[in-house]
Amino acid sequence: MSQAFDELKQYLDRAMALQAALQLFEWDDATAAPKEAGKLTSNVIRILSGEYFQAVNNEEVKRLVKASREDESLTPIQAAQVRELSEELEKLSCIPKEEYQDFARLTSEATRVWEEAKEANDFLRFAPTLKQVVEYQKKFAGYRAKDGQRKYDVMLNDYEPGFHMELLDRFFDTIKKEVVPLLKAVSESKVLVRDDFLTGEFSDEQQERIGRFLAEYVGFDFAKGVMAVSAHPFTTNLHNKDVRMTTHYNHNLDSSLFSIIHETGHALYEFGIGDDLTQTLVGQGASMGMHESQSRFFENIIGRNKSFWIPIYETLQEAFPEALSEIGLDLFVNAVNKAEPGFIRTEADELTYSLHILIRYELEKELIEGELSVEDLPRVWADKYEAYLGIRPENVREGVLQDIHWSQGSFGYFPSYALGSAFGAQLYYHMKKEMDFEGLLEEGRLEVIREYLREHIHKYGKLKDSRTILRDITGEDFNPDYYVMYLKEKYGKLYRLDQ
Amino acid sequence: MSQAFDELKQYLDRAMALQAALQLFEWDDATAAPKEAGKLTSNVIRILSGEYFQAVNNEEVKRLVKASREDESLTPIQAAQVRELSEELEKLSCIPKEEYQDFARLTSEATRVWEEAKEANDFLRFAPTLKQVVEYQKKFAGYRAKDGQRKYDVMLNDYEPGFHMELLDRFFDTIKKEVVPLLKAVSESKVLVRDDFLTGEFSDEQQERIGRFLAEYVGFDFAKGVMAVSAHPFTTNLHNKDVRMTTHYNHNLDSSLFSIIHETGHALYEFGIGDDLTQTLVGQGASMGMHESQSRFFENIIGRNKSFWIPIYETLQEAFPEALSEIGLDLFVNAVNKAEPGFIRTEADELTYSLHILIRYELEKELIEGELSVEDLPRVWADKYEAYLGIRPENVREGVLQDIHWSQGSFGYFPSYALGSAFGAQLYYHMKKEMDFEGLLEEGRLEVIREYLREHIHKYGKLKDSRTILRDITGEDFNPDYYVMYLKEKYGKLYRLDQ
Repeated sequence: MSQAFDELKQYLDRAMALQAALQLFEWDDATAAPKEAGKLTSNVIRILSGEYFQAVNNEEVKRLVKASREDESLTPIQAAQVRELSEELEKLSCIPKEEYQDFARLTSEATRVWEEAKEANDFLRFAPTLKQVVEYQKKFAGYRAKDGQRKYDVMLNDYEPGFHMELLDRFFDTIKKEVVPLLKAVSESKVLVRDDFLTGEFSDEQQERIGRFLAEYVGFDFAKGVMAVSAHPFTTNLHNKDVRMTTHYNHNLDSSLFSIIHETGHALYEFGIGDDLTQTLVGQGASMGMHESQSRFFENIIGRNKSFWIPIYETLQEAFPEALSEIGLDLFVNAVNKAEPGFIRTEADELTYSLHILIRYELEKELIEGELSVEDLPRVWADKYEAYLGIRPENVREGVLQDIHWSQGSFGYFPSYALGSAFGAQLYYHMKKEMDFEGLLEEGRLEVIREYLREHIHKYGKLKDSRTILRDITGEDFNPDYYVMYLKEKYGKLYRLDQ
Repeated sequence: MSQAFDELKQYLDRAMALQAALQLFEWDDATAAPKEAGKLTSNVIRILSGEYFQAVNNEEVKRLVKASREDESLTPIQAAQVRELSEELEKLSCIPKEEYQDFARLTSEATRVWEEAKEANDFLRFAPTLKQVVEYQKKFAGYRAKDGQRKYDVMLNDYEPGFHMELLDRFFDTIKKEVVPLLKAVSESKVLVRDDFLTGEFSDEQQERIGRFLAEYVGFDFAKGVMAVSAHPFTTNLHNKDVRMTTHYNHNLDSSLFSIIHETGHALYEFGIGDDLTQTLVGQGASMGMHESQSRFFENIIGRNKSFWIPIYETLQEAFPEALSEIGLDLFVNAVNKAEPGFIRTEADELTYSLHILIRYELEKELIEGELSVEDLPRVWADKYEAYLGIRPENVREGVLQDIHWSQGSFGYFPSYALGSAFGAQLYYHMKKEMDFEGLLEEGRLEVIREYLREHIHKYGKLKDSRTILRDITGEDFNPDYYVMYLKEKYGKLYRLDQ
C-alpha cells in the first residue's frame, strides 16, 4: 500500500539512529569526556553530522517524500513524519553539505572555547569563534529565507513555528510595559524577604541525595533516566526509555533543587512521548516553547508553590538541618520566591526572568538584523542590564558568557523561555478550573497533574504545534495576559503591593 | 598520486566515525545508560552497525581497495590501512548484511540478559540467548573459513593472527604439564601466606581515591582519559586522546587496585598509539594478546612486584589505615601474590590464572568444534574446575556466568589472556637485560618503562603483528618457556619449593 513510505522508513531510521548517536556524543561531552578529547572527537561529530545530512538530504529521499505526500493511505503518524522530513529537507537542501559539516564541527569546538573563556572570564577568547558562528547562522538563514523573510524570523521559526518578530515585539513590549514597573514596585516595597539561610556550605553528596529524592517525587523515572553533573544543566534523550538530565551544585541550596525540578519538567515531556512516536521525527516536543512551558511549569508554578512543599518540607529540613531546622515553611517558600535583580538568568526569580530574556531577544535581533558587532556585545549587554534590571555586570562570566546557547549556534532559542512561562501560566489558570490544583499538591498527588499533561500535551509529540495544543486544552489561542496576571497576583501578594 | 586512496579515505573516515559511535554506545551502556533503555537503544546500535557494514563493504570500496593495493606510491601507514580494510572486507563480504545487523542487535541484548542472569544466578535465563550467539558465530565462521579451515581457528585468528589450535594445543599442554604440578607443590608447601587483612569493609570513595592515585602513578592521564564503574572492568577508547577504563569496588581492597593497574596497562597502549595512526584502521593494538600482555605486565610483573610498592606503600597504608597500618610491606606483597585456587578468573592469582584460561579454551573448542551443548556448560565447567583446580563451583554466578565475553560473541578471545601473560614474561626477561628494571621501580621511575613500551610496542598500533614485535624487541620468536620460568622462579621463592 504505502510502498514509498516503507522505502522512506529506511532513510528515516538511519537519520534517527545518527541523531541518537550525535545526541549521545553531546551528552557525553558535557558529562564524561576527558578535557583533551574535543578536537579529535569533533572530527567524528563532523562526519556523523554529514552522514545525517546525507541520510535526509538526497535525491532518493526527495522522490520518496514527494510520492508519500500524495499517498492518502498513510496513517496520521506516518503523514506527520513525512511532513517533518519534508520541512527538514527543505531546510537542509539549501545548505551546501560542506558548510553544514564545517558548522557542526565549529559548534562542537565553540562550546569548548566558550567554556574555557567563561572559566577564564575572558570574552576576547570566545569572540572570534562566536563571530564565525554568527556568520554561519546568518548565511544559513539567508539561504533558507523565503519571499523576503527576514533572517532572524527564519531562526525564530526553528524553535517556535508561528512566532515571528512582529508577534514577539508585541509580546516583549507587554513584558517591558508590565514587568519593569512591577519590579520597580517590588523593589520599593517595604516587605523584606529573608533568604540568607539558603546560602552556605552544602556538600555535593548532600545536594545530590535530596535532588534525587525530589526528581523522583516530581516524577523522574530512574529506570528510564539518568541524572549527572555538567557545567550548565540540560536535558536530552535517546528515546522515551532513555531520558537524561544534568544539574550542578553550588553554595545555594535552592539552586540545584530548582534546576532539578526544571529539568525533570523537560524529562517528563520526553518520558511522556507516545511509544508509537519515539524514535521517529515526530517523537519530540511540539516546540521549544512548549518544552520550556513544562520545565518552567514544574519549576515555578508547582515547585515554588507553598502547597507543593507541604508534604515534603520536613524531608528537606532533614536534608539540610544546619540551614533549615529553624526555618518554617512560609519563610522557606517566601525565600525561594524572592524577587531581586541578579546577573544570572538561570538563577533568576520568575519576575526578573523575563527581563533576562527580553535583553537577549533585543541583542539577537541587533546581532542578526542590526549593526551590533560581536566585539560590542559585553558593553551593550551591560548597558541593557543597567537599563532594565538596574544592575551592571562587572565581569563577562556573569554577563555575556553565562549561557551556552550562542556557542551552539542557537540564535532564536531564548524567546522560547519567556513563551514557555507564558504558555505555562495560561495552562495553569485553565487547570485550576479542571481540578483542585493546590489540593492535589498538598496531598502529594502529583501523578494527577503529570497524567493530565501527558494526556493533553506530552503524548502527542510533534503531532500538534504549540498553538493548537493551547487551543485544544484551553479553548483559546495563545494569550500572554495570563502570564502578566500570574506575576501580578503572585508578587502583589508576596510584596503586599495593594496595601 | 594516490587518487584511489584519497577516495577510499572518505569511506575509511566514515567507518571509523561509526565505529567510534558504536564504541561510545558500548561504554555508555556499561557505565551510564538507564536499565530500561536497552531494547530501543539496540535498534540504534543495529542501524549504526549496518551503516558501518555498508561503509566498509560495498562495490566502490572493493574497487578502490583493489586499485590502492596496486598503488606503490602509498606511505607504509596508508598501505597498512588498505591491508586492514582488505582483511575486514574479506571478513564482512561473506556475511549477509541482515545477519550481521541481527547479530549486532543480539549481542547488545545478550549482554543485558547475561547481566540479569548473573544477578539472578540463573543459567537457564541466559542459555537460549547464548545458544543463538553460538549458532551465529559458528555460521559466520563457516562462511569465512578458507580451504578446510576449522571454525574455531577462524575465530582465534580474529584475536591473535597466527595462533591456531595446533599451536595453542601445544601451548596449553605445556601449561597443563608445568602449572598443574607447580600448583600442587604450592598447595602442599608448609609456607602459609597471610592475606586476611585484605578483606574488610572499604567504602567506594576510599577505594576510588587510592585507585585514582594508583592509575595516575602508573601513568593514566586523566586529561585524556576517564575512569568509571561497571559490572565488569574494561577499557575502551575513541582515539588516543580519549581512553576510558572502568573498575568495580568490593570487600577486597586489592581487587579494585589490581583491576585498575590492569586496565591502566590497556589504557597506556591506547594513549601510546601514534598521532599518525589514531582514528585509522591501524590505530589499535597489534592483537588482543599483545594488548593483554601490556595490562598483565602492569598488573602482575610490575604491580605485584615488591619494588613497585617501595615508594608508595606508605600512601596505601594511609588510604586503608584500619587494614594496613600494622602490616609491613613484605606481608602485603606476599599477600597479593598468594596462590590459591578460586572460582573467579579476574580475581585469580598469576599461577592459577592460566588454568582458568585453559578451561575456557577447552570448553570453547568443544562448543564450536565438538559435541558440547550450551545446556551442559555448567556441569562440564564445574567438572573441569574440579579436575584442574581441585574446587567445584556451587553456583553459576561464580561459574560459567562470571565472564561477559560469550554474551558479546567473543569466542576465541580467552586464549589471548594466557598468551598475553606469556608475551609479558618474554618481554620482562629481555627488559631486565636492557635496564635495571627493579631499580627503576624502587625509584618510582615508571616513565622509563612506559616510554620503552611506547617506543617498542604502543606507537606502532597494528603496523606490526605480535610475533614481529616480540622478534624485533627480543630477537626471538614467541617462546612460552619464559612464562613457565617466571612462574617457577616467583612461586618457588614465595613458597620455598627448593627447600
